[in-house]
Amino acid sequence: MTSSTPTAILLVCCPDQRGIVATLSAFIARHDGNIIALDQYVDAADGVFFARLEWQLEGFAIPMDKFHDEFSPLAVEWNIEWSLHLSTTRMRMAVMVSKQAHCLYDILARAESGEWPVDIRMILSNHDDHRPLGDRHGIPFLHTPVTPATKPQAEASQIQALRDAKVDFIVLARYMQILSPDFVQAFPNRIINIHHSFLPAFAGARPYHAAHDRGVKIIGATAHYVTAALDEGPIIEQDVIRVSHRQGVDDLVRLGRDLEKIVLARAIYWHLTHRILVYRNRTVVFH
Amino acid sequence: MTSSTPTAILLVCCPDQRGIVATLSAFIARHDGNIIALDQYVDAADGVFFARLEWQLEGFAIPMDKFHDEFSPLAVEWNIEWSLHLSTTRMRMAVMVSKQAHCLYDILARAESGEWPVDIRMILSNHDDHRPLGDRHGIPFLHTPVTPATKPQAEASQIQALRDAKVDFIVLARYMQILSPDFVQAFPNRIINIHHSFLPAFAGARPYHAAHDRGVKIIGATAHYVTAALDEGPIIEQDVIRVSHRQGVDDLVRLGRDLEKIVLARAIYWHLTHRILVYRNRTVVFH
Amino acid sequence: MTSSTPTAILLVCCPDQRGIVATLSAFIARHDGNIIALDQYVDAADGVFFARLEWQLEGFAIPMDKFHDEFSPLAVEWNIEWSLHLSTTRMRMAVMVSKQAHCLYDILARAESGEWPVDIRMILSNHDDHRPLGDRHGIPFLHTPVTPATKPQAEASQIQALRDAKVDFIVLARYMQILSPDFVQAFPNRIINIHHSFLPAFAGARPYHAAHDRGVKIIGATAHYVTAALDEGPIIEQDVIRVSHRQGVDDLVRLGRDLEKIVLARAIYWHLTHRILVYRNRTVVFH
Amino acid sequence: MTSSTPTAILLVCCPDQRGIVATLSAFIARHDGNIIALDQYVDAADGVFFARLEWQLEGFAIPMDKFHDEFSPLAVEWNIEWSLHLSTTRMRMAVMVSKQAHCLYDILARAESGEWPVDIRMILSNHDDHRPLGDRHGIPFLHTPVTPATKPQAEASQIQALRDAKVDFIVLARYMQILSPDFVQAFPNRIINIHHSFLPAFAGARPYHAAHDRGVKIIGATAHYVTAALDEGPIIEQDVIRVSHRQGVDDLVRLGRDLEKIVLARAIYWHLTHRILVYRNRTVVFH
Repeated sequence: MTSSTPTAILLVCCPDQRGIVATLSAFIARHDGNIIALDQYVDAADGVFFARLEWQLEGFAIPMDKFHDEFSPLAVEWNIEWSLHLSTTRMRMAVMVSKQAHCLYDILARAESGEWPVDIRMILSNHDDHRPLGDRHGIPFLHTPVTPATKPQAEASQIQALRDAKVDFIVLARYMQILSPDFVQAFPNRIINIHHSFLPAFAGARPYHAAHDRGVKIIGATAHYVTAALDEGPIIEQDVIRVSHRQGVDDLVRLGRDLEKIVLARAIYWHLTHRILVYRNRTVVFH
Repeated sequence: MTSSTPTAILLVCCPDQRGIVATLSAFIARHDGNIIALDQYVDAADGVFFARLEWQLEGFAIPMDKFHDEFSPLAVEWNIEWSLHLSTTRMRMAVMVSKQAHCLYDILARAESGEWPVDIRMILSNHDDHRPLGDRHGIPFLHTPVTPATKPQAEASQIQALRDAKVDFIVLARYMQILSPDFVQAFPNRIINIHHSFLPAFAGARPYHAAHDRGVKIIGATAHYVTAALDEGPIIEQDVIRVSHRQGVDDLVRLGRDLEKIVLARAIYWHLTHRILVYRNRTVVFH
Repeated sequence: MTSSTPTAILLVCCPDQRGIVATLSAFIARHDGNIIALDQYVDAADGVFFARLEWQLEGFAIPMDKFHDEFSPLAVEWNIEWSLHLSTTRMRMAVMVSKQAHCLYDILARAESGEWPVDIRMILSNHDDHRPLGDRHGIPFLHTPVTPATKPQAEASQIQALRDAKVDFIVLARYMQILSPDFVQAFPNRIINIHHSFLPAFAGARPYHAAHDRGVKIIGATAHYVTAALDEGPIIEQDVIRVSHRQGVDDLVRLGRDLEKIVLARAIYWHLTHRILVYRNRTVVFH
Repeated sequence: MTSSTPTAILLVCCPDQRGIVATLSAFIARHDGNIIALDQYVDAADGVFFARLEWQLEGFAIPMDKFHDEFSPLAVEWNIEWSLHLSTTRMRMAVMVSKQAHCLYDILARAESGEWPVDIRMILSNHDDHRPLGDRHGIPFLHTPVTPATKPQAEASQIQALRDAKVDFIVLARYMQILSPDFVQAFPNRIINIHHSFLPAFAGARPYHAAHDRGVKIIGATAHYVTAALDEGPIIEQDVIRVSHRQGVDDLVRLGRDLEKIVLARAIYWHLTHRILVYRNRTVVFH
């Protein structure tokens, strides 16, 4: 459900325990919070409880700057990992891109038209091609050529720029360089990549060529958080489209572009609206 | 989530009120019930709260025959409409069919192979063609020819047979007679029909012909509860398949058969596992 | 299949006759044309034959300006309606839009990035909101306010502008005015509209509201050629997305935007690459 | 397109050459054959031409037993590999199954209800569980226990039985033994398997467990011809269904069953109606 009234969102993960839902919802209710969405999930195999609670700020008795103090005793008692988010706080995003710009175009359009509550702080690229796109939208464009020799320095300057801009998360919108483990570790579960295959099929380079060679009847795209292991991070969203023998590699590339931008956009939207929890290299997405 | 341990399932509908989730989950927790699934939904426009709670019977402190007494005060206080179901109780189903048997075959296979926790008590038909199918599975087959003149009597005898067999719900598996309002009223929200179009498009007779004439690029099937208004009852599930100019009406019929049986089977499964609430001619399905 | 070598494309429609495929393909072969795609379809019910032939211009013995003379005798003999297109000729498109710009953004991005072989000659709107988008892309923006009283004049000036710009076809990218029959007749089978429902369900205004009221489990979008009867023109493409009780009208609007732009983009691409034949209010799409 | 009139079907594969379509269609037309379906495809990368021609037998001037003699000169001249099939000849199928019977139920229902033009000659299994299913349908049931030690003998007796029954093709309907290369070679491109994943993802054993571990958001099923390399044969058809974190392995198994039977059924139907050509470990499917 969407809501234009200001809300608070609490993401929770803890050992599954009898009464946990009652405890959490009672806490909000006791302080006059009107819950407008409560999603919960229990991983029965691992005995882990996940929840997302969203309630209206209006009338809620705890000021946000006191929430930590008020909630901490309960969090300690129930062994809860948690994070609190406000619908009124716009997240700060960076986009990394190489030559192919269809995802970048799509992201810029959604941000500019007000579809997403986001501030795009910068565009980073290993090529200078799309600087005009950044200029047009008034977004700083950082061109950092990457070669095997210069990669460490290049990444260091990118990381610095991202930190200076206080970026909350990074979107790899068809960025064709592999990020080093150090880069990835600097932004844990805060880098979203779009891979142009239905992972785990066709990980790595040239997935459309591989899909064509294998003769699959469906192609896909996968949005995932980036981890040190290439294309093996927690999957956020996937979608597919039917193909046939008639489609050559060029057709797969063309059809795949639309998949990529839609799948990436969904993942970004869920990240922006605090709907994703990561656990054991999997995601719980409350959408 | 599936579970082989015995569970109780509580379906709830009431005005949305601050603290309702906490109250419900605390009630179960207080009596040592271990909640394994809690789904809730608030219709913000109408201010209505819906929930499905499922908890393990083992260790639950209230015997099932005392549940009504224990829960009623709370139900009265919060103005809750509710129903309680046990995963250990097999539902009793009747199937009504005419000439086309693909859905009937599918239903019988799922019941026989143990995929569904259901007892098929009888098959009713306006034709005698599929009696051998019933015989093969040891299911009573009631042949009731229906003509405009005999329809009232025919329906009366069908209703009597359904009541005698203590049937919980009825599945219209391509039954090509329109049930009278009296028949429908005898089993409110307990008759599931499969209509061979994407409702509300192509309601009524010969939807595949109509779809072909209109030149649609996708066809669908719709499972819904039957109400007095033809093809206008609450929709439980829909699915679609892509077609092109190449498919003639015969092809649509062939492709549609697979849609019909899958969509109907999903609706039956959700009904059997107590996942559906009906409200204002719409369904809330917690699947 | 895509091809970067220049090709000719022949679209054909005629009464179905023994030998028609052989005759057409022999004609191309006899003049040293290398056929790279031949799609054909026979509507058996109506006895009508449709085909799309694409062959390489290189080596083809008939100069394009002589094709009409060479092919006409055969066309007359077999009673063929036909049109010839060159892959080297960029089509001239106009876009009409109102307040919602997601389809316009998507179209501009595809044109600018070179994904489509198209020249966007102008943007027409009944509001002035999106003039900056046109300016940014160097595309003339014609603002024509439309009221019931001024509609005839407004349309007349729009038609004149479209003719002056020698526009080949028009895309209604969420243009919220109903075009008059006169406007439609001026561009037969050359106006593509995107309707935000799965037609014929929810024709007319506010389809997302109607879909939500009806409680459908899937929503759709439909691209079609515009005819005088509102939302009843030949369907080019449709697609759908699954929804549940959880999605309010606002969510349907949000999810639908992505459907609308993808479905419209496919229809435009097929029109641009001469893959669509219209017959009896239906389309034959060779994609 | 479906047709109840008797037809001949010619499947063709040869080097792509100028005039090949004209030559083939002229051959049929010259002998008074009325072509009701012509599908062709050129693999531009490899320069290979594929076609399926279907024409009405009524009025065709060449008796079927003379077709080989009449067509051979042309086949030699153009270097054509071809096969001829009659819509009036029912194919002979065998089904191999282990413990899980959902695909077997579905196949038997389609055959019995007349949906498919097929004779099921026998059911083979490494378990005796489903003998009653065979008995009920009057289909011989061959129980051949398979252990590592007895596998060669077991397969030898199975192959002998299949040959004695003059079986045209074999369907592995969740048969959980790996066929030896010798078995596979005895029926090249004539064994259809259903694998319960979206290949090439999750080849091998326990794909639903692997899919759950990886946290995919979509699961699939794949029908393919069996080759010596496990799960690497030419893919005939695939389909998918959306899942979420809520689905445990048991749910994936349950949801996957419906996918498996639908995908397998489509592959069988296309095989039965001679719509599949195999080339370089890929399939061309004219459906």
